[in-house]
Parts: sequence; structure tokens; C-alpha cells
Amino acid sequence: MPNPATDRQWDTRRAEKRRRLARGAAIASGRVVPTADIVPFLEAITAPGDRVVLEGNNQKQADFLSRSLAGVDPARVHGLHMIIPSVSRVEHLDLFERGIARKLDFAYAGAQSLRISQFLEDGLLEVGAIHTYIELYARLYVDLTPNIVLIAGYKADRDGNLYTGASTEDTPALVEAAAFRDGIVVAQVNEIVDDPAGLPRVDIPGSWIDYVVQADQPFFCEPLFTRDPRLIKPVHVLMAMMAIRGIYERHQVQSLNHGIGFNTAAIELILPTYGEALGLKGKICKYWTLNPHPTLIPAIESGWVESVHSFGSELGMENYVAARPDVFFTGADGSMRSNRAFCQLAGQYAVDLFIGSTLQIDGDGHSSTVTRGRLSGFGGAPNMGHNPGGRRHPTPAWLDLIETDDPLARGRKLVVQMVETFQAGGKPTFVESLDAVQVARDSGMPLAPVMIYGDDVTHVLTEEGIAYLYKARSLEERRAMLAAVAGVTPIGLRHDTSTTRRMRSDGLIALPEDLGVQRSQATRSLLAAKSMADLVDWSGGLYEPPARFRSW
Amino acid sequence: MPNPATDRQWDTRRAEKRRRLARGAAIASGRVVPTADIVPFLEAITAPGDRVVLEGNNQKQADFLSRSLAGVDPARVHGLHMIIPSVSRVEHLDLFERGIARKLDFAYAGAQSLRISQFLEDGLLEVGAIHTYIELYARLYVDLTPNIVLIAGYKADRDGNLYTGASTEDTPALVEAAAFRDGIVVAQVNEIVDDPAGLPRVDIPGSWIDYVVQADQPFFCEPLFTRDPRLIKPVHVLMAMMAIRGIYERHQVQSLNHGIGFNTAAIELILPTYGEALGLKGKICKYWTLNPHPTLIPAIESGWVESVHSFGSELGMENYVAARPDVFFTGADGSMRSNRAFCQLAGQYAVDLFIGSTLQIDGDGHSSTVTRGRLSGFGGAPNMGHNPGGRRHPTPAWLDLIETDDPLARGRKLVVQMVETFQAGGKPTFVESLDAVQVARDSGMPLAPVMIYGDDVTHVLTEEGIAYLYKARSLEERRAMLAAVAGVTPIGLRHDTSTTRRMRSDGLIALPEDLGVQRSQATRSLLAAKSMADLVDWSGGLYEPPARFRSW
Repeated sequence: MPNPATDRQWDTRRAEKRRRLARGAAIASGRVVPTADIVPFLEAITAPGDRVVLEGNNQKQADFLSRSLAGVDPARVHGLHMIIPSVSRVEHLDLFERGIARKLDFAYAGAQSLRISQFLEDGLLEVGAIHTYIELYARLYVDLTPNIVLIAGYKADRDGNLYTGASTEDTPALVEAAAFRDGIVVAQVNEIVDDPAGLPRVDIPGSWIDYVVQADQPFFCEPLFTRDPRLIKPVHVLMAMMAIRGIYERHQVQSLNHGIGFNTAAIELILPTYGEALGLKGKICKYWTLNPHPTLIPAIESGWVESVHSFGSELGMENYVAARPDVFFTGADGSMRSNRAFCQLAGQYAVDLFIGSTLQIDGDGHSSTVTRGRLSGFGGAPNMGHNPGGRRHPTPAWLDLIETDDPLARGRKLVVQMVETFQAGGKPTFVESLDAVQVARDSGMPLAPVMIYGDDVTHVLTEEGIAYLYKARSLEERRAMLAAVAGVTPIGLRHDTSTTRRMRSDGLIALPEDLGVQRSQATRSLLAAKSMADLVDWSGGLYEPPARFRSW
Repeated sequence: MPNPATDRQWDTRRAEKRRRLARGAAIASGRVVPTADIVPFLEAITAPGDRVVLEGNNQKQADFLSRSLAGVDPARVHGLHMIIPSVSRVEHLDLFERGIARKLDFAYAGAQSLRISQFLEDGLLEVGAIHTYIELYARLYVDLTPNIVLIAGYKADRDGNLYTGASTEDTPALVEAAAFRDGIVVAQVNEIVDDPAGLPRVDIPGSWIDYVVQADQPFFCEPLFTRDPRLIKPVHVLMAMMAIRGIYERHQVQSLNHGIGFNTAAIELILPTYGEALGLKGKICKYWTLNPHPTLIPAIESGWVESVHSFGSELGMENYVAARPDVFFTGADGSMRSNRAFCQLAGQYAVDLFIGSTLQIDGDGHSSTVTRGRLSGFGGAPNMGHNPGGRRHPTPAWLDLIETDDPLARGRKLVVQMVETFQAGGKPTFVESLDAVQVARDSGMPLAPVMIYGDDVTHVLTEEGIAYLYKARSLEERRAMLAAVAGVTPIGLRHDTSTTRRMRSDGLIALPEDLGVQRSQATRSLLAAKSMADLVDWSGGLYEPPARFRSW
């Protein structure tokens, strides 16, 4: 009865890969592509309409390959469907301007977000979807399996064995999707070594990489996570004190992820002073999922930090990280290993708290960093800034957010928004309607690009106080709590004094004085390091800030 | 001002690893441990109180290493903290009986679940936490970093380069956590090859593996995902027809995960008949995240399936998978590659639908597979069976579940419970209170072990009909919808006929006739394969069922 369609060919992908490798072989020597031949090589191995993953990461960029791809002949290579985690280079969009690419799936677009919007309007570009990092990787294994993956590493040998360096980042997740479904993987590296023993370690086995090419210059990498302590203001210190007393201490937060604002940098920098004085060392903030922030150095040196697992690396922190292997993840060679997929997983499922900042929060607590005319995407925040419904293991902090005695109640992840009520330039953070709503309408997006939804936020912390949103028994109460800490913004002006008084006594909101936080104490003198030079000192000279952060 | 504690040693983990490797070197030849010396070797490299990851997977077992660890001298090795994804071997618990281990973190316990409960009661064992697979991996990078990782692979060379074989499963996620934080990784393999070229491919680089040992026999692997079509009953066919018409077709489900029950096997087996007749090929069920179920063969052969990404492998499917590389993930050597971490990620974030079965559902829709006296854990279902709040990309199915015109509304993942109203033996599936609640009380667990929470379930499908729970506007309505499809169970008896009539006309529930499903058509003749032999025929002889499934 069953009658298989025996005439169907079941290895079309493999046959096509074989065909392309044969074309590539005319240019490459074994797995090594001559630097000067990269453009004709890409033309040889690529076909119109291919799905191409390009490693534009948060930090590390396969920029030699992206520049080269932008240089191919659009008559030969066109209509590509690009999958780029972080669209951050000019040439990423030149691909669309030249007709080489047509469709784009991405997770984040920083400097290029305005241009994406314009290209969309001009019909030069079609957006597949905007993702978070980790869901974009996930789709590479489902319906976005790539034909070509272009990545960046530090060193490779002639067999393709790859040392990614400290910024491993997205590379393993991107490569695996092609290496195991007959896609072609091309790695640009800063150096090709003849002797495999010349590799510090192997991050990705050679058999997963089809070609390596030495780039014309080392890959571009940006120190996105460095915050100069000089720019931390007393209001940040005040908010950091509230975070420590009103959230970390109260809920016994042991494992956490920090955003990259000056607010959270202030928390990191007052742990060794304010936190120490409160006797909290060893009780909170032991396990971290974040990049090696330089502002974490004093807390590490003071013995607060048990471990740090990282998405990527941070320029200048290489030697410091290598000298602190008890804290950071490092390889047998001693250099750092990061992994964005696993760190996003850890930041989603294994930590007590996510705390970050945002540009706009509406009256219901929804927030967004999208501003008009810019399709900036999501990055990783939505993955870490929600309550993962699939979590089943308890921790003290997670259990502490249960507000009922229902035996089927679950704990919650702490998701904290830490914002000043006004942004620089006097723009209110708390707004009637997110710009994201209008952006979605203008761009024809099916959904407004909300970064973190109100029902996922457990705490909002401003210079006014903390709203313990997880205690809200209704949407109306959540709105009133938010208004009470929203200062003199349009949303804040909705609050009334008697409600605020009642909510304070009910523990729904807390002002600094309710937490034992003295405003007078909130000065920069609490910062364990007040400048980049102080951070270098704390590190014993191991931290080497990039030039732009050196002012001494 | 900053004054680093320069006298602190920052590489205690590395120094300790060095010390242990020196002890191991007295027994091993390079990286190779003689099979006969494994017990003294484990005694040499392990210290009391170590955190030890043991690869007990869903399918693949590092059983030579677990048996050997259970044979060490408890006077030398004791108080271990075991981290075992799936506690499935007798010796996993012998470790606790002998005092070698003390604390257990795990995700799933099948056959050993009763003994865990008993040991817990007897004070022989302390549970750290019960997790889902993916959150357990995540914690290895945060607060459960291991000292020792014991894993299983197929082949290794003398440098430690590892070929895991088709059942890669958990291995990469477990190894990375130790390899990059100065833990020790020991791999048992079925064969050690002298020439690296003798490895079909490298799944894990040698520098991540400290020791390899040839096992006394090939690692144990169980065909957990094989369902004999002979055991599929007409009621399963009826429910499968409802699933296809009332859920897959209605919501345009393109990417999905299937559980391992006979219900979902029936869906797989009527796609080439019933699905084909409805003209649905190419419109639904194109992208799959699941192990290579033999019952998927007819759908694959009939051209329904674009791709399958898998958690692990399935015994007997090796040659079939290798012959269908357009569909499955395979390596350059042609054999299958699986990856539980990435497949769980894909099943969480990248698919439209999760559908599975359960043992008990309460009146609110909460479900559990826990029965009294057994701590069976969670496995992977909670991760896939919830609506991931961090998802931002839309698909037609996901958007189709939006019920409002709020511009801030989000889509939803389809989470379907597909159950008969009564289990074998006449036990009702729909119950007043889950056994899990009592188990939690008896074991002192902080939370009842609920597999999937009611608010995450979007559809409940029984032989009576489908309840479209995502349409419920209140908890009361959800309860009424559930009762309407719960048959003559205690929960079902709560329904009243007039409410059911109204809910049918409002589209909140649907009976087979509302879906155009004819009960008379629901016979086994719709199954594209009615026996294991039929599956073998469909596969053109490539599928080789394990002996226990061979009856011809």
C-alpha cells in the first residue's frame, strides 16, 4: 500500500552545496580564500535569492565579508534574503540599495535604524520580521535555515578550526544552523596560522567551517558596555541606593542581569561602599549574566561576585578577565569565552532579576526605546525582561513575589525598569502613548514594537520612588502606582496625594524615606570609582580602556 | 584610593583543576583513561562535595561512567551534588544510597521517580530543584557551574575530539559549562580511534574534553519516540481529524512540535490521507521540531515536511535520516546531528504550536503528569508548552489568536492539550484537584509540579470537541468551556446544555460536526501506515525498527 515517491531527490541541498564548493575550489586553495579574491569568490558560491546570515553582532562585525558582499555584481547576485542579528554597518544597507539583497530579518539596528525606515518607505527593502536575538537564532533551525553564513573570528588554521577570541558572541549559534544543513560557512579571521598548534584554542571545529579568509584589517568591534563613572550623577546614586534597599535586599536577589545605563553602573559602583555598609556582601548580587562591564571591577575586587557569564566581551577588559578566571568563563588558553545564545538563555531562565532602562513608559507600564522614524529593533531585552512561563525551579527572590496562598501560584522573575522621570533634553519618560504605536502604523508593522510589556514589569524605579507593580490587584491600581512615581510628567500629574499616601502605607509604592534611604547621602562620594582612571587602579592596571575613554 | 585585595588568589578553580589533572595523569595515558581503571580514576579526579553533571539524557546514557561512579569508595568520594538532566538509571540513585552523593538537581525522572520520593522521605537525598531541561542547562552558566562533567559520545580520538553520533542531545550544553570554567570533562565513548581521520566528524573539539575512556559496552540508548501504529485507535483518528480541521487548518499552523502520544502519532499518519484530501499540503505542518518519529515517515515521503530539527535521535531511524538530508539536520559525514538546547529554544520561540497529552487536567485547565508517590519532573514540555513573553516576531498562526483591536495586543503561541476524557483503566483525565498538589504537600516542595498552567493553554481537544480557551473572557468562561468538552468526568458533569449550545454558536467550543468532521470517517483506514511493517515499507526499507517493535 505505501508507495514512496522514490523518484524524488532527497539531497538537493547537499548537491547544490557540492556544486558551489566546486565553483569555490577554482578560487580557494583548499579551505583558504585569498584575501584579494573574496568578491569573485562570494559571487561564485552565492546564488540569487539565497538566505544569507551575516554576522553583524552587537559588538563583533564580519565587516570584511559584509563590505565584500556589498561589492559583488548585482547582475550575478541579487534578491538575497539577509539575516543579520545586529544591523550596524553602512554596508549592511548598501546591499539593499544596490539590489543585491531584498529581504531583511534582524534583531537590532542601532545607527542604521533611520535608514532602514527610509529604505522600507522607498520600497528598497522588505522586512521579514524584527526579532530578539535568541528567537532569531531559533528560527535558523526551523523556517529560516541559511544557505550561506558569513562570520568573523580571531584566528583559524588551514583546516578551518576557528578561535573566535573573547567575543565568541553569536558565532556558534549561527554556524551550527548551516554546518548541519548543507549550508556554506565562510569565516573571516584576523590571522590564518599554518600550524594548528598556533591556535590558542578551538572554539568551532574545522569541519563546520567551509572556508576561511584573512581579512584586510582586524574585524571591527565596539566597546558598547563601557560607562565612564565621571558621568554618573547624584540622582543615579540615589536610584542605585533605592534599588539595593528596596529591591535587591528586600527580595534577596542573588543572580541578575544588568542593562548598560548609568543607573545600573551606579549600582555596580556602590556595592563596595553602600552595599558593604549594609552588610549585604555574600547575600545579594553573586551571580551575573552580563558582558564584562568595567564598572563591575570594584565589586569583583571587593569579593562580591562569584561568577559572570557573558554574551560577548568588552574591549580593554581582555587582560583583566584573563586574570580573574574564578569569576569569568575562560578557555584552557586563559582567554575569555562568551556565548550570546547561552547567556540569553541564562538571562531568561536562570536569574532572579533583570533591570534595565528605557526611553518611554506609558501609563500601563509598557515601554519602548523606539522613537519616530527609526526601526531600531529589540536586541535581547524582551527575552530577559519578561517572566518566563516555562520556568519551574524556585529561588528565594522568585518565590518572594507570590502574593497569594493558592497552591498553584508560581513565583515571578523580577523585571525592573529603572528610569529618571525625564530624559535628557527635558522629554518626559512617562508618556500618554508610546511613539512605538505610531511607528508601527507608519511602517505597516502588524504589532507595535514594545520592548517590555507592562504586565511583565514587576517594579518601576524612578528618582521619586519604587512602584511594586507585581502587587497590583487591577490594571487601575497598576496605573495609580505608576503615576505615583512618575514625577511631573503627564502620567505623573494624574496621581493624587491621598491615593499615594494609602499606597505607601499598603506597601504598594515606597519613597526613599520609606526604604531608609537618605537623599543627603546620595552623592558621588559613594562611588567606589569616580573615573576611568579609578577603574584602571582597581584592576591593578589590568584594565586597558579604549583610547576614547582615556582622558588622563 | 582604590586598593585591590592583591593577595587574593583569582585562579583557585584552575589551580584545583591542575592538581586533579596531575592525579589523573598517574592513571591515564595522555587523555585516554584505561577502561579497567575508571573507578580509581574517578576517585582521583573527584573531591567530596563536588558538583557533578552526569549525562543522563532523555535517550542517551553515560551509563559506563554512572556505574563506575557508583562504584567509588564513599570514604574517598562523598557528598556529591549531582546534576542529572534525566534520572533514568538504577545507579543514578545508588549514588545516594551509598552516600557518594547527597544533593540532586534534575529535570526528569522516569522509572526512578518512585525511588526518588522514597529516598527523599528516608533522608538519603536532598533535592536542589526540579527543572525543565533548558533551565537546568541555563543554571550551569550561573549558579550551578560544575566541577566535573561526565558525558557519552560515539567515538573519540586520542586528543579528545568527539563524535557524539546522531544523539548529540544535551552533550554540547553540558560540556561547555565545564570546559570554560576550569571544570573537568570526561567522555565515555564506544570506540577510541588512533587516527583523527577515523572520526566521521567532530561534534566537540578535543580541547574541551579532558579525558576519554572506552566504555565496556556501547552506551545505553532507548527508543522513546517510537509508536506502533497498530495501537492507534479510531478515537485517536477522530481527534486527529479535529486537530487538523479545527486547529491546524483554522490557524494556519506551519511550524510545530508534537508530543509522543498516540494522538499526535495519528495526526502525523493522516496528513497523507485526510490532510491531502483537504488540500492542505504545503499550507500546514511544514517545519517541525521533534525527534525523528517513525510515524512521521509517510508525511515526509508524501512531501509534507520541509524540515525537522531534533532534540535527540531515535534508534532505527539512523539510515532513514541519513538518506533524507533535505529534511533532517545532518553533518558533513551524512549522519544526523541533534541538539536538545537549540531544539528546545526552537520549540519555545520559533514554532506556532505545541501539542501534547497529559494525565490530569483540573477545572481551570492546569495539567500534570505527576501521580502520587512519584517525583517525575518536567522534561521539556513546560518550556514548549507556554506562551513565550519574550517573543516579538509574528507569524499568521500567532497573530490569529489576537482577540482585540488594541494596538498593543500581542499574538500567542498555540498550546494544545489533546486528551481523551478518560485514561486507560477508567481514570478520569479531568479532575477536581491535580495529584500534583498533594505530591507537593507530601514532599515539602515549594510549588505544585504543574506541567502546563491553565492560562498558557489555548486549546483543549478531546473526543468530545475542542475548547478554544484563548477566547475565554473570564476564568468562569474558561471553566465552562473546559467542562463542555470534558465528557462524563467530574468536571464534565458540571456543564449545562444551554451554555454548551451558546458557546458552540459563539465559536468558543466546537464539536466534530461544527468542524465538518464526520465521526463515521474516523477509522483506522485513514492511517497512512497501520503497522511498523508499513512504516518500513514507506521508508523503502531504510527504517530499521528495534527488535521489540518487530512482530512480523
